[in-house]
Amino acid sequence: MELASVSDRIKLLREEMRERGIDMYIVPTSDFHESEYVGDYFKTRSYLTGFTGSAGTAVVTQEEAGLWTDGRYFIQAQGELSGSSITLYRMGEEGVPTVKEYVKENLREGGCLGFDGRVVNARDGETYEKIVKDKQGDLAVVEDLVGAIWEERPSFPKNPAFVLEEKYAGESVQSKLGRVREKMKEEQADIHILTSLYDIAWLFNVRGGDIAHVPVVMSFAVITLEMCIWFVHPEVLNDEVCRYCEENHISISEYEAVYGYVESIPAEKRVLLNKSIVNYRICSGLKAELVQAPNPSEWMKAVKNETELANIRHAHIKDGVAFTKFMYWLKNHIGKETITEISAADYLRERRQEQDLFLDVSFDTISAYGANAAMMHYAPTPETDAALRPEGFLLVDSGGHYLDGSTDITRTMALGALSHEQKLYFTTVCRSNLNLAAAKFLYGCRGTNLDILARGPLWELGLDYKCGTGHGIGYVLNVHEGPNAFRWKQSSDPGGDCVLEGGMVTTDEPGVYLEGQYGIRTENELLCRNAEKNEYGQFMEFEIITYAPIDLDAILPEKMTERERGLLNEYHKIVYGKISPFLNDGEREWLREYTREI
Amino acid sequence: MELASVSDRIKLLREEMRERGIDMYIVPTSDFHESEYVGDYFKTRSYLTGFTGSAGTAVVTQEEAGLWTDGRYFIQAQGELSGSSITLYRMGEEGVPTVKEYVKENLREGGCLGFDGRVVNARDGETYEKIVKDKQGDLAVVEDLVGAIWEERPSFPKNPAFVLEEKYAGESVQSKLGRVREKMKEEQADIHILTSLYDIAWLFNVRGGDIAHVPVVMSFAVITLEMCIWFVHPEVLNDEVCRYCEENHISISEYEAVYGYVESIPAEKRVLLNKSIVNYRICSGLKAELVQAPNPSEWMKAVKNETELANIRHAHIKDGVAFTKFMYWLKNHIGKETITEISAADYLRERRQEQDLFLDVSFDTISAYGANAAMMHYAPTPETDAALRPEGFLLVDSGGHYLDGSTDITRTMALGALSHEQKLYFTTVCRSNLNLAAAKFLYGCRGTNLDILARGPLWELGLDYKCGTGHGIGYVLNVHEGPNAFRWKQSSDPGGDCVLEGGMVTTDEPGVYLEGQYGIRTENELLCRNAEKNEYGQFMEFEIITYAPIDLDAILPEKMTERERGLLNEYHKIVYGKISPFLNDGEREWLREYTREI
Repeated sequence: MELASVSDRIKLLREEMRERGIDMYIVPTSDFHESEYVGDYFKTRSYLTGFTGSAGTAVVTQEEAGLWTDGRYFIQAQGELSGSSITLYRMGEEGVPTVKEYVKENLREGGCLGFDGRVVNARDGETYEKIVKDKQGDLAVVEDLVGAIWEERPSFPKNPAFVLEEKYAGESVQSKLGRVREKMKEEQADIHILTSLYDIAWLFNVRGGDIAHVPVVMSFAVITLEMCIWFVHPEVLNDEVCRYCEENHISISEYEAVYGYVESIPAEKRVLLNKSIVNYRICSGLKAELVQAPNPSEWMKAVKNETELANIRHAHIKDGVAFTKFMYWLKNHIGKETITEISAADYLRERRQEQDLFLDVSFDTISAYGANAAMMHYAPTPETDAALRPEGFLLVDSGGHYLDGSTDITRTMALGALSHEQKLYFTTVCRSNLNLAAAKFLYGCRGTNLDILARGPLWELGLDYKCGTGHGIGYVLNVHEGPNAFRWKQSSDPGGDCVLEGGMVTTDEPGVYLEGQYGIRTENELLCRNAEKNEYGQFMEFEIITYAPIDLDAILPEKMTERERGLLNEYHKIVYGKISPFLNDGEREWLREYTREI
Repeated sequence: MELASVSDRIKLLREEMRERGIDMYIVPTSDFHESEYVGDYFKTRSYLTGFTGSAGTAVVTQEEAGLWTDGRYFIQAQGELSGSSITLYRMGEEGVPTVKEYVKENLREGGCLGFDGRVVNARDGETYEKIVKDKQGDLAVVEDLVGAIWEERPSFPKNPAFVLEEKYAGESVQSKLGRVREKMKEEQADIHILTSLYDIAWLFNVRGGDIAHVPVVMSFAVITLEMCIWFVHPEVLNDEVCRYCEENHISISEYEAVYGYVESIPAEKRVLLNKSIVNYRICSGLKAELVQAPNPSEWMKAVKNETELANIRHAHIKDGVAFTKFMYWLKNHIGKETITEISAADYLRERRQEQDLFLDVSFDTISAYGANAAMMHYAPTPETDAALRPEGFLLVDSGGHYLDGSTDITRTMALGALSHEQKLYFTTVCRSNLNLAAAKFLYGCRGTNLDILARGPLWELGLDYKCGTGHGIGYVLNVHEGPNAFRWKQSSDPGGDCVLEGGMVTTDEPGVYLEGQYGIRTENELLCRNAEKNEYGQFMEFEIITYAPIDLDAILPEKMTERERGLLNEYHKIVYGKISPFLNDGEREWLREYTREI
């Protein structure tokens, strides 16, 4: 049984801790690269606690086991932890300590704190180091204790890598390396250690399959002003990739060899790396002087080039066609045949698979009916799979990876009768979405400046959503990509709230989540681009590049201003123009109706 | 002649520099306390360059004399510097170096950089120290070279101090000292050096008259956990103030004695001070360990207590009565008799003087007709004093100090015919003002989160104003007070953009400024206060505490949304309710008309 098993695991972990004299053990959610989503091999926290959400940290002592997670997962975690003895710590809520505060308060004087140094970033690692030092205690960071108790652990991900051709990537690896080296020179760095899987994939124009729906290759990279090394399991490289690396002067070394390499860097060198991303074990092995800075590639990959943008726009038309076909089918079949959250998601996936250059869905589809949609990141499992009835809302948050771009779209669809409140909130979310997309602003604005355009209409009703309004999106990479974002809380990182640049693509996804009742979210992707430049500066604006109807069955036109109705009509006109050529007659007729002027 | 004289002064300064081997000399705009406005004694930059604006820095070498100022003063500075050989550096414009960049680029290797160490804050001083060190040069910071060449320099300000009674201040000095000491303990500081004149006045509940329209006392304060010392010229203290200090255990010491005291602080003490405000000479004399933090009193004085708030609301009614009487008179007399910018300002001042507890105007009245109003901080002089004609706009930005609070209000008034563009922009500025005031937001928001509510309607038209949207306002102190503000650019200070707290009062003053044509600004003060608290958090809202009509003669109702018209009508209804009881019949009738529903 699942519940007993979680208790057993915690018991086993406590035994391992006792053997080694470890008083407190931290199990974060991370691979060795601080990836957001991790392969099954790395799901130590999930294995230990039974909580399957994508974000969370477990802390175990002999007395208590706690799990920290954020607002997206409160409801899910509460469910999955219920019956276990694990305490849920709701991050960000009043009076709830952070993991670090908890460690500080609860680790005994002279105590020993343990974690696997490869799954904690250097910045956090150093914070723990300081807490432990203040308590004159010890740090135990070499062993993976959950690994030690994990029977039948999935194998380490080693899937084939492939080259992303320049017609898709838009810039050669040599050109990208040149730009990174320019930045290294600016920072007077001799060596750059890059451990972000997304950035490595972007920099080398390679993709793989080592994280579900995130086509990256488990690897590290070291770039000097003269050469670069790719630390990667050789068995994932076929002849073509090997030849490509040779042609581009990318030396290959073993994945694990990075730790030895780093230790061998002479003390007089200057090494550029981002401590918030590089793992503690790498950093603590370095003797060289550190230049602490964001990875230059992070910002570079967020600013999409013209080739990528042309590709992305094209990918979005295909994706919009798939979504529109799905929506047409759903609206016409609901109540007439059995449809469940999963079967709906499957139907949508099939429509995407029919599209040219399709690779994979870009993340686990959130297909959430009724109260399930109040859990922001719910994904149906066979156990939870709800049958859809011809009433209420179905929320579908999904996307595709195509060779010409990745997508992330959410639509909430009325399956039948709705209450006035449901329509009012749906309309408000739509207004929030449109108001942000219609922003015109001076260059220099950050997501924190604009967030209130989306959140304001909800705040006016005393509502909020406990997450950011939107995130950057990778090109055939992670759909959650920094540094661009829409959120209202200032980043604790200096410079963490980046200026919105032309070429950045960011999602716009306000929502309403009522626990136990329903959830609403409308998500489009916004491409930031230059508007006019005058004596006041460079004005910026957004182009909506997601094309699918926003369900008019749930809209109360009288609750929108004239301007907002105009924005919706204008958007729907574009949707019809882009999507209708790829539909059959029935679908086209339906789309015309669902993109009508209101 | 003025222009010849400026050239002479720069020539004399260059001679002084040559004698001392100083290659470059910086003359900022500051007293020894980093006050925003400075007494005449401290107007070295103005004396040297002829530019009379409140903000600017001069840098002089043997080859060049440059003046740096910000967007508020570009037009004024251009005028005042014209004919001189001084280069105007427009701060914030593309490609214009900052003062520090200029120093870095232009100081020769091994060169000597000079400034008066008392008028440069420690943070800037250390930056210059570093630049000079990198060039293996010298720093000369002891002498005031402009002082050395200044004949007939005004005398050092030494005006009488007085006690602000608790019925006005709302909190005793003992209670305030207790709160500051709590904060010192939190920061593990033994000693706190406070040099901000505003903070000293707030902390000790004293006021004075050492800066025009800013009722402060030239002084320094040192607070330890057991005692406190006020470094002040004893001749400004009458018996009552001396007795008050004794009763409250505030020791008195000579103003200049602070430098010696600071040097005598033992090295093992921890001293809390804010390097961005404390002057370089004080800081460089310290041997003790520094706790770098904002002055605790800065935040405390920004959060007004209940007594202050009740007083402030009352002061605003009196101020609104004065302004409404002025507006009535202006509207009824324009075109019938000679009115100039200055005579209008005088009339308004007289109306304020009639009010109970009036002390002084709270800053030099900006009374700006036509193109003069395009200069944001223009104040008329006998030379520029424009006669008002029955057409176009008069912009009046003014305020009063009353014992029960200070005010800052701007109204732009139609004196006769307006163009469509003028009305459209006036209406847009009004929308900007109302939209910000109507914000409802979660606790935790900063001014940077909300600024776009004011700026958005102007940005949509491709317009902007080159300054913040609003500033905190002191209680019988400086009308410009931190840390609260509305602006969109992130502060470079970590934590410089403070969270908006209940009890903070911030101005809301968007505008349009068209060089050579006209200027529009509408300014109200907003009191931040709690709205409902629910599962999403504590919601916040604003109460408009400025009461005077926004000129309906310049409004195009059809360019406002229904909601915006509702906001304006609601505001005008409040204005009528608060102000009409204090008017005569003619004024009341006029106010009814000018606060009518649109």
